[in-house]
Amino acid sequence: MDFRLTEEQELLLESLREIMARDCTEEYMKECNELGQYPTRFVKALMENGFGMLGVPEEYDGTPVDTMTMMLVAEEITKNGGPHFVFGQALSIADMLEFGSEEQKTDTMREVQAGNVAFVLGFTEPQAGSDSSAIATTFTRKNGKVYINGHKTFMSNALRAPYMLCLARNSEEVNDADKRNAFTMWWVPMNVPGVKVEKLKKIGWHMMDTCEVYLENVELEEKDLVGVEGKGFIQAMINFEVERLYIAAAVMGMAECAFEDAARYANQRVQFGKTIGSQQLIQEKLTYMKLKIENMKNMVYKCAWEIDNGISVQVSSALAKLYCAQASCEVIDDALQIMGGIGYTTDCRISRLWVDSRVHRIGGGTDEVMVHVAGRAILKQFK
Amino acid sequence: MDFRLTEEQELLLESLREIMARDCTEEYMKECNELGQYPTRFVKALMENGFGMLGVPEEYDGTPVDTMTMMLVAEEITKNGGPHFVFGQALSIADMLEFGSEEQKTDTMREVQAGNVAFVLGFTEPQAGSDSSAIATTFTRKNGKVYINGHKTFMSNALRAPYMLCLARNSEEVNDADKRNAFTMWWVPMNVPGVKVEKLKKIGWHMMDTCEVYLENVELEEKDLVGVEGKGFIQAMINFEVERLYIAAAVMGMAECAFEDAARYANQRVQFGKTIGSQQLIQEKLTYMKLKIENMKNMVYKCAWEIDNGISVQVSSALAKLYCAQASCEVIDDALQIMGGIGYTTDCRISRLWVDSRVHRIGGGTDEVMVHVAGRAILKQFK
Amino acid sequence: MDFRLTEEQELLLESLREIMARDCTEEYMKECNELGQYPTRFVKALMENGFGMLGVPEEYDGTPVDTMTMMLVAEEITKNGGPHFVFGQALSIADMLEFGSEEQKTDTMREVQAGNVAFVLGFTEPQAGSDSSAIATTFTRKNGKVYINGHKTFMSNALRAPYMLCLARNSEEVNDADKRNAFTMWWVPMNVPGVKVEKLKKIGWHMMDTCEVYLENVELEEKDLVGVEGKGFIQAMINFEVERLYIAAAVMGMAECAFEDAARYANQRVQFGKTIGSQQLIQEKLTYMKLKIENMKNMVYKCAWEIDNGISVQVSSALAKLYCAQASCEVIDDALQIMGGIGYTTDCRISRLWVDSRVHRIGGGTDEVMVHVAGRAILKQFK
Amino acid sequence: MDFRLTEEQELLLESLREIMARDCTEEYMKECNELGQYPTRFVKALMENGFGMLGVPEEYDGTPVDTMTMMLVAEEITKNGGPHFVFGQALSIADMLEFGSEEQKTDTMREVQAGNVAFVLGFTEPQAGSDSSAIATTFTRKNGKVYINGHKTFMSNALRAPYMLCLARNSEEVNDADKRNAFTMWWVPMNVPGVKVEKLKKIGWHMMDTCEVYLENVELEEKDLVGVEGKGFIQAMINFEVERLYIAAAVMGMAECAFEDAARYANQRVQFGKTIGSQQLIQEKLTYMKLKIENMKNMVYKCAWEIDNGISVQVSSALAKLYCAQASCEVIDDALQIMGGIGYTTDCRISRLWVDSRVHRIGGGTDEVMVHVAGRAILKQFK
Repeated sequence: MDFRLTEEQELLLESLREIMARDCTEEYMKECNELGQYPTRFVKALMENGFGMLGVPEEYDGTPVDTMTMMLVAEEITKNGGPHFVFGQALSIADMLEFGSEEQKTDTMREVQAGNVAFVLGFTEPQAGSDSSAIATTFTRKNGKVYINGHKTFMSNALRAPYMLCLARNSEEVNDADKRNAFTMWWVPMNVPGVKVEKLKKIGWHMMDTCEVYLENVELEEKDLVGVEGKGFIQAMINFEVERLYIAAAVMGMAECAFEDAARYANQRVQFGKTIGSQQLIQEKLTYMKLKIENMKNMVYKCAWEIDNGISVQVSSALAKLYCAQASCEVIDDALQIMGGIGYTTDCRISRLWVDSRVHRIGGGTDEVMVHVAGRAILKQFK
Repeated sequence: MDFRLTEEQELLLESLREIMARDCTEEYMKECNELGQYPTRFVKALMENGFGMLGVPEEYDGTPVDTMTMMLVAEEITKNGGPHFVFGQALSIADMLEFGSEEQKTDTMREVQAGNVAFVLGFTEPQAGSDSSAIATTFTRKNGKVYINGHKTFMSNALRAPYMLCLARNSEEVNDADKRNAFTMWWVPMNVPGVKVEKLKKIGWHMMDTCEVYLENVELEEKDLVGVEGKGFIQAMINFEVERLYIAAAVMGMAECAFEDAARYANQRVQFGKTIGSQQLIQEKLTYMKLKIENMKNMVYKCAWEIDNGISVQVSSALAKLYCAQASCEVIDDALQIMGGIGYTTDCRISRLWVDSRVHRIGGGTDEVMVHVAGRAILKQFK
Repeated sequence: MDFRLTEEQELLLESLREIMARDCTEEYMKECNELGQYPTRFVKALMENGFGMLGVPEEYDGTPVDTMTMMLVAEEITKNGGPHFVFGQALSIADMLEFGSEEQKTDTMREVQAGNVAFVLGFTEPQAGSDSSAIATTFTRKNGKVYINGHKTFMSNALRAPYMLCLARNSEEVNDADKRNAFTMWWVPMNVPGVKVEKLKKIGWHMMDTCEVYLENVELEEKDLVGVEGKGFIQAMINFEVERLYIAAAVMGMAECAFEDAARYANQRVQFGKTIGSQQLIQEKLTYMKLKIENMKNMVYKCAWEIDNGISVQVSSALAKLYCAQASCEVIDDALQIMGGIGYTTDCRISRLWVDSRVHRIGGGTDEVMVHVAGRAILKQFK
Repeated sequence: MDFRLTEEQELLLESLREIMARDCTEEYMKECNELGQYPTRFVKALMENGFGMLGVPEEYDGTPVDTMTMMLVAEEITKNGGPHFVFGQALSIADMLEFGSEEQKTDTMREVQAGNVAFVLGFTEPQAGSDSSAIATTFTRKNGKVYINGHKTFMSNALRAPYMLCLARNSEEVNDADKRNAFTMWWVPMNVPGVKVEKLKKIGWHMMDTCEVYLENVELEEKDLVGVEGKGFIQAMINFEVERLYIAAAVMGMAECAFEDAARYANQRVQFGKTIGSQQLIQEKLTYMKLKIENMKNMVYKCAWEIDNGISVQVSSALAKLYCAQASCEVIDDALQIMGGIGYTTDCRISRLWVDSRVHRIGGGTDEVMVHVAGRAILKQFK
């Protein structure tokens, strides 16, 4: 075994840290967070320095890298206090470049290269959270046109994205044993008639809008179909495992960020005549925080290595998502506790990490769904 | 043993629920929270219905009740989604009515009867959190006047309160073995020259301001001394145990509120063709949530009974504060998880309870201080 | 509310402590445990001092007491290091006195008054653990006789008990919508042909045998039927809730015993120049141990009070069993950790409590069954 | 990074599994455990197949391997239900071969090659558990001889070992700022006058004796000094980190053993008409058990890799010991719970793993000492 990063990886992270020291300062993050403002400056800096095209195939002028490297970058961004969503787009882009038509790919890459959000993933609906098969948005063919009707929710960046990759159900009965074959993906421009977007008020992630999107008789052409008809569900699932790992990596970086701030504070803060770090109760917290971070790192890196080596990650990606989402919330919660009252104010970035991290035990597959996925698969291994 | 409420207590709570159904609706709470607005309507309703004078001695036209009843009211307010701070004032008022001069008591009761915050507790400082003995704010006598200099922080309602009950250290060396005898309490009007108030930005408790207060050569008279010179520290400590219990009761009600919302939701929300409540993972959560709520209730009621029966609550009030603060955060966190994405939006009051509850593991004595207090006292019992 | 014991209860417990100081010394317990020997001396002392007839109706020369008192006695026995099973019989006796024929009652009381185990509860089978409805032992009528065939397991005290209260299924098809009506209870003498008893080797509870019992064509008379034909299942369930509470009370006393030993040790044991009790990590353990004990006590007493006041305890008895079984294991585990290496040797009674307590998360309804029972009932309350 | 084992490692483990399938069957283990009998057959098989000389330098006819391989072997032994202590000796032998005189090394290797326990580590004393500096056993020089007096405890295999590597304090005042320089190691034959051995009764590890050893005027020669006078303490500490990792690896294998048994059982055991594995509560347990095992494996392997690459493991070995000892107890406890009543009997090896695993949170440095070691070191990294 070998637990070393390659020299290229080290250099890439070094370069990322430099960019962030300049264009993703905590001052800037605080400003974006308070004003509910998209971190455009940081996104531009990533794009100008090549990070925006990491993971994109060479034929689109991208820089293909392995999964390990993608995860290291995701971790490094959040470890330095940055928002992970600016980089996560790389994963969904990969989907589009795989399934999309030439026109759809052109749409996508034009936005990506301009440093924009290219599209929003239109899967979740009010009645279809963990249960994607309950999706009720329909597509209906009439007079050579296609009409989309439905209601999507928890759409990240829907106010900024020019397109939605919309998963919809055939309004006509589909004669297929596998009910999932009723689903098809559509490429929906967000500025056409019938699309209405309403912002949700959240307790965290203020830099990024999250919206309800109402689709009423949205008229599309056949050319707007993405990939293969009836394969929308499978296309949506194909990268679920990498997305789970991505969340794991991102949220783990958030934990590292909070941990390091708290450890430094414990060395400085004096109460009862000595640093709080000299108290066993604080040492105990830091020990278990560090322990969890080590576990997260090992888990994420191993799972990335498995993907890069063609090993199945059905169980390991679910475990990584489950563990990292929970453990990072715990680590950040402990960090907030070490900070005391200050940790509860927005002067301290741990407070932002605390509210932001919580959503990751829900989004991208809840804790409970991860248990469901992993638990059944583990049992199969021992049959 | 007997675990029944008295008929008077039942009627009081019934009446409180009626008031809240009218003047502390969730719609109103949401509005106050979003606008950062003090819940004046609810405070007025409490005052008009006699709840504002609960616990106040009869000589001040109050309605003296036992500790049990006070805690039941605190619990009922938060259990119905209300903010506990509107009632908690009763405890600090009790202090003032015990130690204050006639003039100070008149000041206090005038504000109380007008439904205002009477004063802010001026104890905490940036360098004096858990360690009150590190208080650096001084009082200095000069030409028959008294001058206060210092910097207080985490002052609740400082923007609204007309007075501060300010704990300050004698700027001259005090010749006393017990260093705590250097401290004296002062009655500081907030509108005099030298007082500067700055609001802190918090992640929760948006209905209530929390501030830094800078005191620069604030000029007082001798008559502004509260209680006995050199006894400020002891005066401040005298009701610590009741305050701990009060926080325990209040935060427990918050947990009950979240629990009931989540249990109802689990019965309605359908995923994968059945209610999520029919899934063992959700049943397990609800079972442990209920279990913790039962533990909290027993603990708070028993401790209240002990106070009412003159039994020492040094250990039990610390345990109640510790357990309730932690367990209620856990219960509310589970409730949010059951709600899924909706729980992360401000449409759902559980999101408010989630950010609000977190502060109670810090304020009123951190978890760690509770362990310190209880742990040593327990050991003494087995010497 | 009132959290005081009555004077009678105080006196009873005082008297019990005196008996135990004489006839249930730790030396004696250690001896019984090492030799796998039934604690006859303690049982006799209980009988001679009236504790053996507590909870038995007056018509059988017993001393009827409320549930609260029964639980206090159960707790006090284990709190002082004694084995709870010597007292638990009172509960199953109550069943027999309710359902049994005159002859069966005479059999029962003769043994009870002689200080013997009267009978073993013949419910559990290898394939019927949590799922009682899977019981495969049958009764068959032939030529005016009744024949029992089957295999019971985890039979406590089967080597000592003269009878088994055996739950068996009608070997003939029972035409009833409710499948549970196929079950009937039988009074099986353990010394008749066809009964074979084999002792199981356990990791704890060495003072008490636990056996497999094979029943092969055991011939009974119709008079050996207990209670009502077809009502065996309901008869068996009727006292499940009290039994759950009894286990909760008993295991809570075990936790108290371990806690007090550990707290005393922490005050004496010196390492690194000071008592280990002066270390925060030990204070933290003791604080949470005490906290859990307080929760257990409140929960058990409240549930007992509910039973005595005719309030349903479907949820509260399941919660009490669940919480006490888990929390007492945790408390005892912490106590063992505080003792260090000594705690792992049989010189220290905490080691015995540690192996013994573990079984209570399985027997009397597993943790998982308690979650199942409580979880569904809680959901119903919010429908 | 690379998470693959080498082909050599795979082959070695394959070969070990074959040996164990023959000479370390569960039947044999059960027999050894019940009779309190040393697993001689397995030890001989290991020796005959070269495992007994793994990690021993070539000059002693050993097979030097890296730390990774040592840990893999330790894990594989316990994963297959074997006792780790038969292999752990390799670590202490390494010490002797480093510090010992020619004669002492000859003594050691003679025993090792005969498949015997070579010597017992004589560090722990009743008053010197976590605090080694409290060692009270003395050595005194008189008339050219050396006399040892003291009382050692928790001496593993003391009844079988021909020697003790005894850490003792100079009975004369040592003039040194560093008090630890008063300690020297001595090579004490166990069969000389003045050595008395008494077996302790433990709740687990019945295959291995653990003893108190009383040393009364045990007469030695100067040649029996081991290593350098006054350096006994440092010599004892030098391999502490590898020993911590060894315990981590061994106890992790125990968890894997229990996990696999429980997973298989969950697929077979039917209750309420379906396998218990189809219940979410069981799936949840298995998911977290697997998760913890993955964390343990990553942690142990990474730490082994660090040692093999000359990277400091002060923190990581303490974290590995802490986490693995706790997590394996949790995993095994869950496994026992899944097994139900059977898990509490000695018919099921999980019961043995359950009592055996508990000691590892105490021996080799308690959980609390690990927090102490790691916590302070972590804080230093952030100064």
